[in-house]
Amino acid sequence: MATATAELLTAVREGQPLTQCITNSVVTGFTANVLLAVGAAPAMVDIVDEAGMFAGVTAGLLINLGTPTPEQRRASLEAAAAAHTAATPWVLDPVAVGALPVRTALARDLVAVGPSAIRGNASEILALAGASAGGRGVDATDTPEAAADAARSLARTHGAVVAVSGPVDLITDGDTVIRIANGDALLTRVTGGGCALGAVMAAFLGAARTTGHTALEAVAAASLAYTLAAEDAAVAAGGPGSFAVALLDALAAVEPVRILSGARVEVSAVEDRPVEVHG
Amino acid sequence: MATATAELLTAVREGQPLTQCITNSVVTGFTANVLLAVGAAPAMVDIVDEAGMFAGVTAGLLINLGTPTPEQRRASLEAAAAAHTAATPWVLDPVAVGALPVRTALARDLVAVGPSAIRGNASEILALAGASAGGRGVDATDTPEAAADAARSLARTHGAVVAVSGPVDLITDGDTVIRIANGDALLTRVTGGGCALGAVMAAFLGAARTTGHTALEAVAAASLAYTLAAEDAAVAAGGPGSFAVALLDALAAVEPVRILSGARVEVSAVEDRPVEVHG
Amino acid sequence: MATATAELLTAVREGQPLTQCITNSVVTGFTANVLLAVGAAPAMVDIVDEAGMFAGVTAGLLINLGTPTPEQRRASLEAAAAAHTAATPWVLDPVAVGALPVRTALARDLVAVGPSAIRGNASEILALAGASAGGRGVDATDTPEAAADAARSLARTHGAVVAVSGPVDLITDGDTVIRIANGDALLTRVTGGGCALGAVMAAFLGAARTTGHTALEAVAAASLAYTLAAEDAAVAAGGPGSFAVALLDALAAVEPVRILSGARVEVSAVEDRPVEVHG
Repeated sequence: MATATAELLTAVREGQPLTQCITNSVVTGFTANVLLAVGAAPAMVDIVDEAGMFAGVTAGLLINLGTPTPEQRRASLEAAAAAHTAATPWVLDPVAVGALPVRTALARDLVAVGPSAIRGNASEILALAGASAGGRGVDATDTPEAAADAARSLARTHGAVVAVSGPVDLITDGDTVIRIANGDALLTRVTGGGCALGAVMAAFLGAARTTGHTALEAVAAASLAYTLAAEDAAVAAGGPGSFAVALLDALAAVEPVRILSGARVEVSAVEDRPVEVHG
Repeated sequence: MATATAELLTAVREGQPLTQCITNSVVTGFTANVLLAVGAAPAMVDIVDEAGMFAGVTAGLLINLGTPTPEQRRASLEAAAAAHTAATPWVLDPVAVGALPVRTALARDLVAVGPSAIRGNASEILALAGASAGGRGVDATDTPEAAADAARSLARTHGAVVAVSGPVDLITDGDTVIRIANGDALLTRVTGGGCALGAVMAAFLGAARTTGHTALEAVAAASLAYTLAAEDAAVAAGGPGSFAVALLDALAAVEPVRILSGARVEVSAVEDRPVEVHG
Repeated sequence: MATATAELLTAVREGQPLTQCITNSVVTGFTANVLLAVGAAPAMVDIVDEAGMFAGVTAGLLINLGTPTPEQRRASLEAAAAAHTAATPWVLDPVAVGALPVRTALARDLVAVGPSAIRGNASEILALAGASAGGRGVDATDTPEAAADAARSLARTHGAVVAVSGPVDLITDGDTVIRIANGDALLTRVTGGGCALGAVMAAFLGAARTTGHTALEAVAAASLAYTLAAEDAAVAAGGPGSFAVALLDALAAVEPVRILSGARVEVSAVEDRPVEVHG
């Protein structure tokens, strides 16, 4: 995984994949800055009659449901459909799904289109898999391990890579599970700390189209590069404000050799035991 | 007041009150980061058919009228009504009211629902009380003391705590006036410097539901903790950019003992003299 | 040019021109902070039934088409018409025009109203002049010099100052060309690095109404002050995150004497040679 991450990070920096984001109003600026820092080219194209057309030509796409206005809901469906047709890889981040009705309905419609990856906290993944009524909104009230079976079920049912955020990130394609222990608790004290990672996943998925890595590798590589940069940022940070600034600097500076030496990753096969979650 | 502030700050950090914000597009990210820094849990739920439901379960709610799109206007009314029904404390920040017609009409409708607190600069408070045609928009062209009678009138008419921002903040429930001389002029050089304080007030009002402090104490405590953190941030800042970053670090770091030693607060009874403003 | 820049910067700081921005959701906060740092007073008034009224009283106006929702499209047309009537100077930033249909149609409608200045990268200026099918969106795939003839044509046809961003900025009113070699590549690694400059142009155009400088001088002065501050910021920056913070500090700190000594500006008459672009 560390080698694949180093290769994909280099590919992102060299290829500057155009990364379309339909994301929430809280984190648009931070998300674009994270993409620029990592080497990708952000494009926040999120209106009807443009979002779909652009999804057909962009390298990768993020759809984040944090503040889904009616315009963004229509643009999201338009973009997802176009991405499907054009085989553009796309990431769904179903923020606060299960807890709130409008986005929950939208998330179910979008999952049915077939995202390449689904990223959320444990509560969101459980809710999307039909196994929970959801958390308090943006907070995870469950742990990634508690959502492991739900993640596997979602991944198998929809053919998507599923990434569950937490102290140890859990990423699965339904057959393999990757656990990443890198990161820093300050990521949870910055708004968009998780949302921006969804955009990085879209950029890495875009880069993987030219490198030949799998979607599982691309999603895990994005998580690993991002959480390692977060560790570097935390060293210099005096609090959440300076951490967010340092994270952008660290994303721009992190070197492949740092990834090879710093990765704390575990890869294993999914155990096939009976599950009770429904996709 | 300093003791109440220390108690409420601790309660916010321990309880992480869920704080819903329907706020303007300029300051959403900064506002969420301020809430996270102070220890609260931000939730920017601002669309129709979700805003009201969420207002019924959140600890506190902010409605800020900075960029009131049609969707946000409907969501604001929905949330205010739900907050009223559920007894959720909520803060109204009537940005640029009086100067612009759409938000002025909306502000009057929202005031009629009964906010727990109203936060604004002197021009906005005067305009809302019917005593002025308003300022230049986001700028205060009047001083807090010039709005003291208007604030008292608004507070008595609507049963709300009214907070007027300025070099010395003035906060009143109609009977008592609290003046806070803490803060730094750099707060006026950062967009959202005032708007984010409205969100902190909502978080402190949420925390006060469990501590038993009054709404007046909660609003004043939020102002005091925030302006003291601003003083700490200003020490390290080289300009408005580094000040905004340092403010987030300072909000996360400020200790109760700092509040007890640094507070410059004056509490007095409202003098009952004839006023000419109309609620 | 350096002298005019120093005079206009002083005028902005003393007069604090009210600067209305109808801009994209990615950069609203950063744009407002840039305006505050440089000494102007931002006002993000971008909804229907307020945008036009405000455009009649503001000192300067920016219309940026980065994320043009239906509400913003209507507000933009309302504001442009009101600015035209009131002789309020206004800047059009046609982000990604040519590449995407909704904003391309809107940009053509807005250009017809007669902006005081048009700011874009080379691809956008070529597209607006009808000479190109556009770039990848927010990226410039052409150089400013490649857009020199298109800029001249646009400027002459519409009576606007046209500013083309790049390693060397090119600014023309159709008769004179100003080239500014100041700046730093880190500006392209911060979202809103270009968009915020459009707002600064609007502020300087507003200040020029009282100083008597021409629109060409105001637009070039904004570019020069901004790119010089970027050079100062780059000295202290450890990456794109700390650069964005340092840029705000530098904009607040940059002194007229620094502009006089640091400017790398070339002013020349437009050569009249046949052109093939169409306005």
